[in-house]
Amino acid sequence: MSGLFGKLSNKSGRKKSDLAEAVSFSEHNKGMATLTVPDIEPSPAHDSKALKKAFHGLATDEKAIIRILGHRNASQRRKIRETYRQLYNESLIDRLFSELSGDFRNAIILWTFDPPERDAKLAHDALKMSKKGVEHLKVIVEISCASSPHHLMTVRQAYTSRFDRSLEEDIASNVSPPLRKLLVGLVSSYRYDKEVVDLVVANLEASKLHETIKTKQLDHDHVEWILSTRNFYQLRATFESYKKTYGNPIEQDMKSCGSGNVVTLLKVVISCLESPEKYFAKFIKDSVVGHRTDEGSLTRAIVTRAEIDLMKVREQYQKLYKTSLDDAVGDTSGEYKNFLMTLLGAPI
Amino acid sequence: MSGLFGKLSNKSGRKKSDLAEAVSFSEHNKGMATLTVPDIEPSPAHDSKALKKAFHGLATDEKAIIRILGHRNASQRRKIRETYRQLYNESLIDRLFSELSGDFRNAIILWTFDPPERDAKLAHDALKMSKKGVEHLKVIVEISCASSPHHLMTVRQAYTSRFDRSLEEDIASNVSPPLRKLLVGLVSSYRYDKEVVDLVVANLEASKLHETIKTKQLDHDHVEWILSTRNFYQLRATFESYKKTYGNPIEQDMKSCGSGNVVTLLKVVISCLESPEKYFAKFIKDSVVGHRTDEGSLTRAIVTRAEIDLMKVREQYQKLYKTSLDDAVGDTSGEYKNFLMTLLGAPI
Repeated sequence: MSGLFGKLSNKSGRKKSDLAEAVSFSEHNKGMATLTVPDIEPSPAHDSKALKKAFHGLATDEKAIIRILGHRNASQRRKIRETYRQLYNESLIDRLFSELSGDFRNAIILWTFDPPERDAKLAHDALKMSKKGVEHLKVIVEISCASSPHHLMTVRQAYTSRFDRSLEEDIASNVSPPLRKLLVGLVSSYRYDKEVVDLVVANLEASKLHETIKTKQLDHDHVEWILSTRNFYQLRATFESYKKTYGNPIEQDMKSCGSGNVVTLLKVVISCLESPEKYFAKFIKDSVVGHRTDEGSLTRAIVTRAEIDLMKVREQYQKLYKTSLDDAVGDTSGEYKNFLMTLLGAPI
Repeated sequence: MSGLFGKLSNKSGRKKSDLAEAVSFSEHNKGMATLTVPDIEPSPAHDSKALKKAFHGLATDEKAIIRILGHRNASQRRKIRETYRQLYNESLIDRLFSELSGDFRNAIILWTFDPPERDAKLAHDALKMSKKGVEHLKVIVEISCASSPHHLMTVRQAYTSRFDRSLEEDIASNVSPPLRKLLVGLVSSYRYDKEVVDLVVANLEASKLHETIKTKQLDHDHVEWILSTRNFYQLRATFESYKKTYGNPIEQDMKSCGSGNVVTLLKVVISCLESPEKYFAKFIKDSVVGHRTDEGSLTRAIVTRAEIDLMKVREQYQKLYKTSLDDAVGDTSGEYKNFLMTLLGAPI
């Protein structure tokens, strides 16, 4: 046992020279956002005044709202929110809520929030819905396993500020064991954020995961520990080692453990850790397939990834489904559609 | 079981109006630092030059070093470190290391570090020593249970930056179960930081803790979960409820579970959570009692608390031992003694 949680040491294939070149989660996604912003940053006061003007009169100028907010990054939107409040003594988000409606409103408001606060809110809503099915908890896995470690920390901070308790406490009071332990572990993680891999540890931990699948003990502490502590690149090597040694991808072998909630959520965990872009490409496809688009999911995927890696998601989507991600959004309509297309990179 | 991890809700004695007045860990300790700084902040360049001058010649001017660094807060020391590097193209800490020696050097260097980096280093050193006894792991409990939640996050960040892996990974590769689980849980915590207490939850969790003591199952998930997730004030209410309901303080009842490592460390956890100032008063007393002062422990206690709550520790010390904290430090000598006395509030 004592050797299980091997040390990622210089001795076993991890060199200091690798470290110098190692890049972080954010660096890996550099240039992979689809959001487009003007070359010259407009002043937050100018934007606030234009928004105020768009709210004026009987018919809200929705196109103007898209033209402004749909082309501003998180830091610019924060400044606009602050300036708007100073100028008009009202909350921009409250005003958007009263001016707009339907899916368009939901999308614009989710986008206007600061990303940590947005994710805190999404996690909170998910926990409220969690009694209705484990599917609702996916978003908490996405935040924990498909975001940068630093972002996850800021979400936990935003959660306590907004809801007067910690995210972990709310997970514990809404989710039963053994799911509770897995989720608390995941949201508490602060992974090392560089591409450093130890193949000896990957092999060791692949065999440990195999053992828990064979004995159908997916709620074992080791599973939670490995998945919530190791860095993204290390885990990808572990999954690779698993496939090489035991023949199947780990998520496929997990099916032998039944179709319980833990298996369902662990498959989401592994997908998010393995390849966030593939996970979100599939997630978007699932949200538009069939007779009715699931706008809630579609909005969440586009809004939360537009500033991170939506370009990669777009490439994956094309590769997997031989059709453009724009086509998926194409089934929606009105300003909602225009807004999503804007986040997908439609020109200013 | 499902009701165990009760929700800290408005229904059970927790009112929104309480929240408005609720104060955080840092606010609670306001004015409780012993460190004294000049009313007018000297420029970092001026301080850097004075330090450089103190290093000049055969005999280092140790008094000058104390006069400067011993009267600068963390933010001022950071600016001095940065300015010193810019001016002289060398690390202030490396220079202090080469100029000084013994306990004085250790204390000055520990103090000169940025607090998150200092604690990351202390945790790292503790893990390296952990095979020699559970006592060494105390410092990790102090960082997790006697610091602000925000500080703990910054320590985890500093740890990954400095050591190229996460604190949790190093705990797992150096500490065996069941201690491992407890420590990983504690360092991963991000407690809500306001004084909000739910007495119903306190009673429930006191009874749960009592159950684990009665059945000698202190390594149970619930113990780790309660102690690493609840806010400080909630936990104090839980310990209070325990004492009221079962007659003894919880740490006393834990003795019935033997003298293993988990019991030893859990007693430290509870002391730190109940009253950091009492914990450190006792810790300092233990470090100076007997024939030989344990300078490592004495330094750590004074240096790490001087900017937080050393005034409270001083009061507790007086109350518990009817003697002044200055007397404890009085058994040491030379510039080491002068430096500790400076951090204890000796005039500039």
